[in-house]
Amino acid sequence: PDVQSAHDERALPIEQVGIRGLRHPLTIRTRSGILPAVGNFEMDVALPAHVKGTHMSRFIALLQKQEEAIDSASVVSMVREMLPLLNAKEGRIQFTYTHFVKKAAPVSGVESLMDYEVTWTAKAKQGVQDAQDAIDVELNLRAVVPVMSLCPCSKEISEYGAHNQRSHITMSVSLDPRTKMTVEDLVAAAESQASSELWGLLKRPDEKWVTEHAYDNPKFVEDLVRDVAGQLQQDQRVLSLEVEAENFESIHNHSAFARISLTK
Amino acid sequence: PDVQSAHDERALPIEQVGIRGLRHPLTIRTRSGILPAVGNFEMDVALPAHVKGTHMSRFIALLQKQEEAIDSASVVSMVREMLPLLNAKEGRIQFTYTHFVKKAAPVSGVESLMDYEVTWTAKAKQGVQDAQDAIDVELNLRAVVPVMSLCPCSKEISEYGAHNQRSHITMSVSLDPRTKMTVEDLVAAAESQASSELWGLLKRPDEKWVTEHAYDNPKFVEDLVRDVAGQLQQDQRVLSLEVEAENFESIHNHSAFARISLTK
Amino acid sequence: PDVQSAHDERALPIEQVGIRGLRHPLTIRTRSGILPAVGNFEMDVALPAHVKGTHMSRFIALLQKQEEAIDSASVVSMVREMLPLLNAKEGRIQFTYTHFVKKAAPVSGVESLMDYEVTWTAKAKQGVQDAQDAIDVELNLRAVVPVMSLCPCSKEISEYGAHNQRSHITMSVSLDPRTKMTVEDLVAAAESQASSELWGLLKRPDEKWVTEHAYDNPKFVEDLVRDVAGQLQQDQRVLSLEVEAENFESIHNHSAFARISLTK
Amino acid sequence: PDVQSAHDERALPIEQVGIRGLRHPLTIRTRSGILPAVGNFEMDVALPAHVKGTHMSRFIALLQKQEEAIDSASVVSMVREMLPLLNAKEGRIQFTYTHFVKKAAPVSGVESLMDYEVTWTAKAKQGVQDAQDAIDVELNLRAVVPVMSLCPCSKEISEYGAHNQRSHITMSVSLDPRTKMTVEDLVAAAESQASSELWGLLKRPDEKWVTEHAYDNPKFVEDLVRDVAGQLQQDQRVLSLEVEAENFESIHNHSAFARISLTK
Repeated sequence: PDVQSAHDERALPIEQVGIRGLRHPLTIRTRSGILPAVGNFEMDVALPAHVKGTHMSRFIALLQKQEEAIDSASVVSMVREMLPLLNAKEGRIQFTYTHFVKKAAPVSGVESLMDYEVTWTAKAKQGVQDAQDAIDVELNLRAVVPVMSLCPCSKEISEYGAHNQRSHITMSVSLDPRTKMTVEDLVAAAESQASSELWGLLKRPDEKWVTEHAYDNPKFVEDLVRDVAGQLQQDQRVLSLEVEAENFESIHNHSAFARISLTK
Repeated sequence: PDVQSAHDERALPIEQVGIRGLRHPLTIRTRSGILPAVGNFEMDVALPAHVKGTHMSRFIALLQKQEEAIDSASVVSMVREMLPLLNAKEGRIQFTYTHFVKKAAPVSGVESLMDYEVTWTAKAKQGVQDAQDAIDVELNLRAVVPVMSLCPCSKEISEYGAHNQRSHITMSVSLDPRTKMTVEDLVAAAESQASSELWGLLKRPDEKWVTEHAYDNPKFVEDLVRDVAGQLQQDQRVLSLEVEAENFESIHNHSAFARISLTK
Repeated sequence: PDVQSAHDERALPIEQVGIRGLRHPLTIRTRSGILPAVGNFEMDVALPAHVKGTHMSRFIALLQKQEEAIDSASVVSMVREMLPLLNAKEGRIQFTYTHFVKKAAPVSGVESLMDYEVTWTAKAKQGVQDAQDAIDVELNLRAVVPVMSLCPCSKEISEYGAHNQRSHITMSVSLDPRTKMTVEDLVAAAESQASSELWGLLKRPDEKWVTEHAYDNPKFVEDLVRDVAGQLQQDQRVLSLEVEAENFESIHNHSAFARISLTK
Repeated sequence: PDVQSAHDERALPIEQVGIRGLRHPLTIRTRSGILPAVGNFEMDVALPAHVKGTHMSRFIALLQKQEEAIDSASVVSMVREMLPLLNAKEGRIQFTYTHFVKKAAPVSGVESLMDYEVTWTAKAKQGVQDAQDAIDVELNLRAVVPVMSLCPCSKEISEYGAHNQRSHITMSVSLDPRTKMTVEDLVAAAESQASSELWGLLKRPDEKWVTEHAYDNPKFVEDLVRDVAGQLQQDQRVLSLEVEAENFESIHNHSAFARISLTK
């Protein structure tokens, strides 16, 4: 008795039904080579009003046969493959993982890895013609970039010093699925606009440079979102964007945050 | 030198700027009387393109003078008060807390508290006339209701037993700001549609009842969202709704989930 | 059939068995008056080798009848009451909640609340005489205090500025159960030794003071633990102590931490 | 000016000082081959009373040059290398990652990955002779194994059905550093004693088997810890052990838990 395929009388289509919190080992194509990662997956399809249930195990089967290193192209092809497999007209694959980038310290040049939380989302929708080609895919890339922010007001009013703190800049951009946008490109948009970027490993001359560089580039949380959004606005590959900055204030026990979203 | 009020040249308005992660003690008006709580607040305003920054400390000051027990009416009046104080045309207050409801066990009638994560969101927008009255408020209530779900497929195919697990039903509803919708009303919509609701304290005859009741009411994650959405659809006080169910599967190490959203 | 009371043949006593993650509304006796809170409780007893199981619902019943405002004395009396109720010779009650303290800003004197994560633990053990009086109680208080730390090395090597960040100082102290040690006393030991303490609300002259005060009091993570441990070492009420400091580095995406424990 | 190496007057040695929350890509030697992972590292050393500070960047440098696939032997050799590098007599390396094991479903034999949170801890201590050989290493392995538990009381008192839920069995074992104990061996000790183990992918006949198998093997949280501890007690490679079970109860919104620790 195939309970899931029974006819449903409630006249309520379901926008998303699937699995969540599934962890799977991955390899990621990065500027520093192919690096290991663990993805946390969410995979779902739309269910028409008259169908009782989806086939949950097919999501797992699709994921388990994925073997290539991940980049934007493989995400797009996985979601295309998902629709016929799940017998669905719409579906979505989303996964979050830690992306590592090898960076050189600003003075000594010593190399170390920085880690970023990255999320790829691909949504597929079948066109009216019902042909395999007619599947449209929307691709979205999100990265959380930890940076340093130094408070302009504190600098202005104090005789010496200025409070600063770790901040998170979260960017989410819609991309043309055929475009080549790398995680490294997106991360650079945030790091270039912060009071200072961060590194895993700094020698003493690097620490001096970072301290003075941040002091020379004070930014409010409002400045961070405007400057990063302004940067992404000029990137032809970005169709729409959302930028959020959160400062884990070093003088309070709460955060300041700001958010801008733009569709071109 | 009032750095925040300086003129900004970047031509980028900011949709939201404010504070996040601010914890504040509250008292909550509940069906079981006025109960203690701790709110986690997010408060923000829109910032026009030409203004450099907002005045973060005014959010805190507004919150600290709040003294009454919280219900939907006090949330609405707080966000109305926020706009002139922050010199803003749009703004939002959101807070999450643990809401307790005293419930009687199904057979023994023994009473105990159940806890639910509840979020109120109020968005205010000033109309064109610029009059205090012309502030429109959108009110949203969200509750996460832990329930039990028992798998219809497992019951159908097994000679005895059926796997079941804890599930979370998350409902988010838009309300007319003048309507009286209580957290208890919203919670009931989810609990009435689950395989079984949960209690803090159960005697032996209650445990027998819950076990058999769940076995008699098997539900897929798809059934949970459809039945709860169907229930809320009939409630006149609800303008639009989003229902999500997540089953922390007892046979897998990942979740099954489903989501429906409806605007009437 | 009382399954839990059956005889067990495995010859393995259980050190702790009970409940965890139980949320319950509380009122807390603080320096700023009686404040609302929500406790997250863990309650357990020791189970002799020959007993099959404990009676989980009795923990809940004990907690639900608790009605007074919480302080160290009420925690001690609750754990004393638990042993006979659960038919146990050893047991433990532990709960974590957010403790608020009203503080005045350093220059303007404006008042606001600061929030601290606090944990009380009381362990009871019945003596050989089996008399009610013969129950020994060990009492432990733990607080996580967010502060600002400013890096001495960064200050020393840089021509201007110095990186600083939010840090957490976590203190855990064993107390004589009859002693009066308040959360406010414990918090003060950490705040007095940081580069600067934090406030919920600061006016401009306060922000200037905090910035310069932190610059004048640079501390490594090693200095933080040593100075706080040194402070607590002199407090007669403290029988033993553990101090940990964690700096959420503003120049890296990881933390620096240090830990000292001392028994007097 | 080497601030960290200055002389310290406070007469307080520091038990642990180092870094925490450092994420680093890894490859792990598993039964299913070499699999990608991301480790979350904590690395620290003891600091004598007269030394002001440690050299934080050396921890990062040590980790960054690690290139081999990880197993117990490489953890031990890394901590041995750390002591002279940090100029320390005692030190510790701990890291947590997601370990994947390929498992075959019980009836269909279909293969899928299960994920486990695993932590390796290696503590090194230099002996009195000050020779490289004289470094003693204590090795500890910890794994969190998600399983299903079915309530014996619910089964006993109900005419049909029995509530069950996801449970976590957390085992922490001290090992002889020369012993070959794999993560897979440790995981098996927990899975073999649960009402049922979990799989990533189950076909219909597998789901029937799991449902009935769990119903045939009801276990209280007390049974889980006793049976797993009993299993590990017989393993010659285990020097001491701690076993904890936590049931995310499907009839309550809190957990039941139990803990046993044994030194042989």
